[in-house]
Amino acid sequence: MDAIEVTDPRDPRLADYVGLRDVTLRKSLESEHGLFMAEGDKVIRRALRAGFEPRSLLLTERRREALGDLLDGVLDRGDAPVYIVSEEVAQGLVGFHLHRGALGSFHRRPLPAVGDVIEGARSVVVLEDIVDHTNVGAIFRSAAGLGVDAALLSPRCADPLYRRSVKVSMGSVFTLPYARMDDWREGLGALRERGLRILALTPGEDSVPIGDALAGDAGRPTALLLGTEGDGLSSRWLDQADARVRIPMAGRDVDSFNVTAAAAIACYELVRCSAREEPAAGAPSPPWASEDPVSVPPGA
Amino acid sequence: MDAIEVTDPRDPRLADYVGLRDVTLRKSLESEHGLFMAEGDKVIRRALRAGFEPRSLLLTERRREALGDLLDGVLDRGDAPVYIVSEEVAQGLVGFHLHRGALGSFHRRPLPAVGDVIEGARSVVVLEDIVDHTNVGAIFRSAAGLGVDAALLSPRCADPLYRRSVKVSMGSVFTLPYARMDDWREGLGALRERGLRILALTPGEDSVPIGDALAGDAGRPTALLLGTEGDGLSSRWLDQADARVRIPMAGRDVDSFNVTAAAAIACYELVRCSAREEPAAGAPSPPWASEDPVSVPPGA
Repeated sequence: MDAIEVTDPRDPRLADYVGLRDVTLRKSLESEHGLFMAEGDKVIRRALRAGFEPRSLLLTERRREALGDLLDGVLDRGDAPVYIVSEEVAQGLVGFHLHRGALGSFHRRPLPAVGDVIEGARSVVVLEDIVDHTNVGAIFRSAAGLGVDAALLSPRCADPLYRRSVKVSMGSVFTLPYARMDDWREGLGALRERGLRILALTPGEDSVPIGDALAGDAGRPTALLLGTEGDGLSSRWLDQADARVRIPMAGRDVDSFNVTAAAAIACYELVRCSAREEPAAGAPSPPWASEDPVSVPPGA
Repeated sequence: MDAIEVTDPRDPRLADYVGLRDVTLRKSLESEHGLFMAEGDKVIRRALRAGFEPRSLLLTERRREALGDLLDGVLDRGDAPVYIVSEEVAQGLVGFHLHRGALGSFHRRPLPAVGDVIEGARSVVVLEDIVDHTNVGAIFRSAAGLGVDAALLSPRCADPLYRRSVKVSMGSVFTLPYARMDDWREGLGALRERGLRILALTPGEDSVPIGDALAGDAGRPTALLLGTEGDGLSSRWLDQADARVRIPMAGRDVDSFNVTAAAAIACYELVRCSAREEPAAGAPSPPWASEDPVSVPPGA
């Protein structure tokens, strides 16, 4: 296949990319067509490395040359077209200036079952009703980076594959295994059946410092429940937890952390104190799915 | 004094509150008049408790009754007027819907000297050229909440008292002591003179896990250098550090944390591993500066 130049933002072949900031439109379009969006070549490459199948790729003329390897790689697959558009067409199509110059539309895959995701996991984060896409993305980024084994979502949690979540997560939603409960009330039962200890992160007065709680039974597989920044965890989930834990605070007239910070610290302690297996080596990547030429060392 | 109802958004008495989202306007207005903005009653109360002197208070009619104690408290001081405006006037004045219904304009105080801020400190975060107000506010919130003793800013760092920083920090910029270096090149000298160990947070290959570095000399007063999310720390500061540290990563095709997450984890380890004194008890608060009726327990 060759790349296809498109000059009309209303061209039906570009329908996957319409109105990216229109949340209502996008939610229905993406669920109807079973797709998700990856923005920027770094995140697109991660989706490819994670084995997601592209529906199509959109590049601006300005970035065509710089991203030639990505373009060729997708064309070589033979299963997805690459569209080239001007900056003006891109803006008219997606609704903002596409300064990264690359969008990928990908096929979703069926989510695994809860039991499959937590089988053998040493550390799991469980998100209850976190409806903010930014927060979901940020938590995934920290959890994946630190080495948490899996995530579970309550039925009402925001979609990790929504564009904003994908972007904030830097693509870590592709690699951190996750599943969605279909039952909120009994959703924690699967964790208990598999012997995971359940800790609820909450600033309540009867909570203990998270480091102490984890160190007390180090190495035991553990699930950590995280609630919303405002309302926190439901009383039902708090009651079902084995222990309530908090991040110790120092006073200074500060009474809470933001959810990204709290989740990062909690995941750090969770991984530090739970024995964990070495991360499995990823599937071999085709050369065109490689990172930027500059090597990116692991780290903060 | 009585509260003053104002019906014209162009009334010169409301000049402190004009165009809050116009960064250029606000930067010059705030530095010219030596003021800063606190948004929402919770943050306003924190500014008052921290001893900042109000220039004036602005309440919407809708919130006047619910915030009656705050209104009376400021009027009782006798040094600052309270203006009452309709929702429409508020919107025309500040440029967006003021859903919290309360703004406070406060006098700035001269910043302390670097030496005064770090004298006796066991843990210090040092921000190099973090120009994003959101990131500065988020780092202050985590550092203050976790019990870091002080912050230092390089000459080009964003202003912690700019409205956006204040808001994201939830007012912790009022209580975490900080100072700004006037010299970037030699700015770390003051830390070394006082015997603080200097650790640079960086994903470079020659960095060691932060927990290991801190545990290796636990209890020693330590300064932690934090750079921007993109470029990281300057080579000059990296070269001046005693050691380079990183947050261990687990793979999963994630190569970095966001700056809020990284700073939160790093501050958590910094405080956990540095012996620290108990936080000093705050000055007694007048009853009208109390928190919301619902007590807010310390915690995550």
